[in-house]
Amino acid sequence: MNKIDGGVTTPKGYKAAGARAGIKPDRITNDMAMLYSEIPAAVAGTFTKNVVKAAPVVYDMGIVENEKIAQAVVVNTGIANACTGDEGYKNTKKTAKLAGEALDIDEDLVLIGSTGVIGYKLPMDKIEEGVKALAQSLSDSREAGEIAANAILTTDTHKKETAYEFSVGGKTCYMGGMCKGSGMIHPNMGTMLGYITTDCAIGQSLLQKALRIAIEDSFNMISVDGDTSTNDTVLAFANGMAENALITEENEDYNVFLEVLKAVCLDLAKEIAADGEGATRLFTVTVNGADTDENARTLAKSVVTSNLVKCAIYGQDANVGRVLCAMGYSGVEFDPCDVDITVESANGSVKLAENGMYTDFDEEEATNILAPDQITCIIDVKAGDASATAYGCDFTYDYVKINADYRS
Amino acid sequence: MNKIDGGVTTPKGYKAAGARAGIKPDRITNDMAMLYSEIPAAVAGTFTKNVVKAAPVVYDMGIVENEKIAQAVVVNTGIANACTGDEGYKNTKKTAKLAGEALDIDEDLVLIGSTGVIGYKLPMDKIEEGVKALAQSLSDSREAGEIAANAILTTDTHKKETAYEFSVGGKTCYMGGMCKGSGMIHPNMGTMLGYITTDCAIGQSLLQKALRIAIEDSFNMISVDGDTSTNDTVLAFANGMAENALITEENEDYNVFLEVLKAVCLDLAKEIAADGEGATRLFTVTVNGADTDENARTLAKSVVTSNLVKCAIYGQDANVGRVLCAMGYSGVEFDPCDVDITVESANGSVKLAENGMYTDFDEEEATNILAPDQITCIIDVKAGDASATAYGCDFTYDYVKINADYRS
Repeated sequence: MNKIDGGVTTPKGYKAAGARAGIKPDRITNDMAMLYSEIPAAVAGTFTKNVVKAAPVVYDMGIVENEKIAQAVVVNTGIANACTGDEGYKNTKKTAKLAGEALDIDEDLVLIGSTGVIGYKLPMDKIEEGVKALAQSLSDSREAGEIAANAILTTDTHKKETAYEFSVGGKTCYMGGMCKGSGMIHPNMGTMLGYITTDCAIGQSLLQKALRIAIEDSFNMISVDGDTSTNDTVLAFANGMAENALITEENEDYNVFLEVLKAVCLDLAKEIAADGEGATRLFTVTVNGADTDENARTLAKSVVTSNLVKCAIYGQDANVGRVLCAMGYSGVEFDPCDVDITVESANGSVKLAENGMYTDFDEEEATNILAPDQITCIIDVKAGDASATAYGCDFTYDYVKINADYRS
Repeated sequence: MNKIDGGVTTPKGYKAAGARAGIKPDRITNDMAMLYSEIPAAVAGTFTKNVVKAAPVVYDMGIVENEKIAQAVVVNTGIANACTGDEGYKNTKKTAKLAGEALDIDEDLVLIGSTGVIGYKLPMDKIEEGVKALAQSLSDSREAGEIAANAILTTDTHKKETAYEFSVGGKTCYMGGMCKGSGMIHPNMGTMLGYITTDCAIGQSLLQKALRIAIEDSFNMISVDGDTSTNDTVLAFANGMAENALITEENEDYNVFLEVLKAVCLDLAKEIAADGEGATRLFTVTVNGADTDENARTLAKSVVTSNLVKCAIYGQDANVGRVLCAMGYSGVEFDPCDVDITVESANGSVKLAENGMYTDFDEEEATNILAPDQITCIIDVKAGDASATAYGCDFTYDYVKINADYRS
């Protein structure tokens, strides 16, 4: 597979659009987006595990579970449509109906995504105008994909896209994705809005299975602030227009597809981690030598989620004691006296702890290694062969500023 | 029982001291403290559940478990003596030996507390001088208790003490306490250094039982930053010098004792929450109507720990959606459509959500209610009769500043 410049409109048959509906009165950017497949596509989804689920999450879960195909998604930002009761659910259904009419497709083929403030009601007059504008401006151009990727953002500082070219059964296929997410990000399914398109032909149950696997090491391994959102949704569409033989079993074609899907999810997840609210650095934590995959994941997530570790990364402080502390309260049993910890970046690499104790590393050198905008911490617990990697960011004044000043 | 002005030297037979050993080269404040009972006292302890335990925690656990009596505690700040291997443990034992010599008591009657940077080694020459100075300046005066309470602080902004007078079997008894804790504070046993003294006579096993119960609704219900420390320790001493009949069963005397111990623990725990690193407000969350005590605790802790909720409290933003979101990812099953949420303070009270939906509260009024330095959020989940209260603080720029700039 080859990574290429592209996004959700890169695969055959997909169109996208962005529009300004005026849901956020104080902003001039687009606040609605639409994604459309020329023909109905197999659809798979993963959703927040938060008990408090937004109306569009409940709605989409029903469509994915019962219909298994879809042709369009409408996304609004500004209002999450969560904690809005029956009226919120009706507004989601109404949005799907409006989109179905505007696109001349069955309303059950339309999925909905919302992100923004919890508790507010959708301004349905503005949504209606937005849906019409979106349907009229759909395009399969590269630019249309970029417009849509920009239109779904909230406190994100830039759009997040990726695309791959790959081959299945002699046919060239494409997969593209876009996502948003900056705050209320914590590893527990979905953790953001993500939309993935492919023209590869694959059965819906295999698509769902592949998506569940792909999110495990990507979206489920990122954390910005430990808060799992009410609206997290990842949807994957496969419309089959690449005309490869339909993938219906876990054969070599499926393995190729799964690898591409994993790459798309990981690209997007890392973009979210690096663009965490107020973040100045992508912080990657790899745990090696754990006894089980689950323990490796738990340890890596605990370190990447620790406020104190994140503050130290921001301050370029090689505070390896906080890393050990965060591992220690993760709930995983391990022997602290076996742990090695190394940090590395474009400026080099230094071992900070060996067998659970500080090495006599040079503080100045360590501070310099922690300077670049991508920092990796590699931990060896010497208890087995399992590994996992988690992605997060540093913790800055701006995180507090963004979340104290703005009802997001 | 009556709350009185006092601290660890208030009960009969206890002396305290503070001294400057120079462990923190950049500070002029005392960095060592000693607490001493004229006669051996029954001792109970609770300790961090972090897998990575500091040397003094491992040491104290052994003394409490095996000896069940003690006569002195030596505390140093500046260095946590965690992740220091065998040498760290030997240094803890050496400190106890030095104190035993200076006080002319068995070294097994000396407990040790350390708090500060993880990974550094104790400067034993300075510790030795400090122990001698402490032993020479011990006093049972009220002032000596204050000096000790000040000497155990790190990033705390002020000392934390409390004291009660109570009656057991016709005898007047006293209980006093001091603690420290500002960062690396999260509900999971201990979460700080706390020392409680009483002259009441009570058997060690009942003292241990009472302490375990008392910390459940106090120290275990506070959170500053979600990081459970490597050094958390709460020790309670009972030297029997009030000359009441020894409490050996769970009778009326025990119940009185337990109530006083609960009050001491809660006073100290709330002081820690209010003095969280960078905090400007004590934030109290009460969950009512839960189906079980455990679920009530989990919900209250999840809300009080959420970074996004804490930022909103700092920003005086009545962002009730974040409260619902934090309840939703706590792991507790409940019906979001039943939840009522009210905030109150010295400026009044306002219901923000009813049956899971925003009320049309007045934003200006809500902002005004969130202005004072003590804010309470009352949540009713309408699923049963269980209640719990958690204590935390708001999240400010200064938390990040303290933890990015200072290897603490």
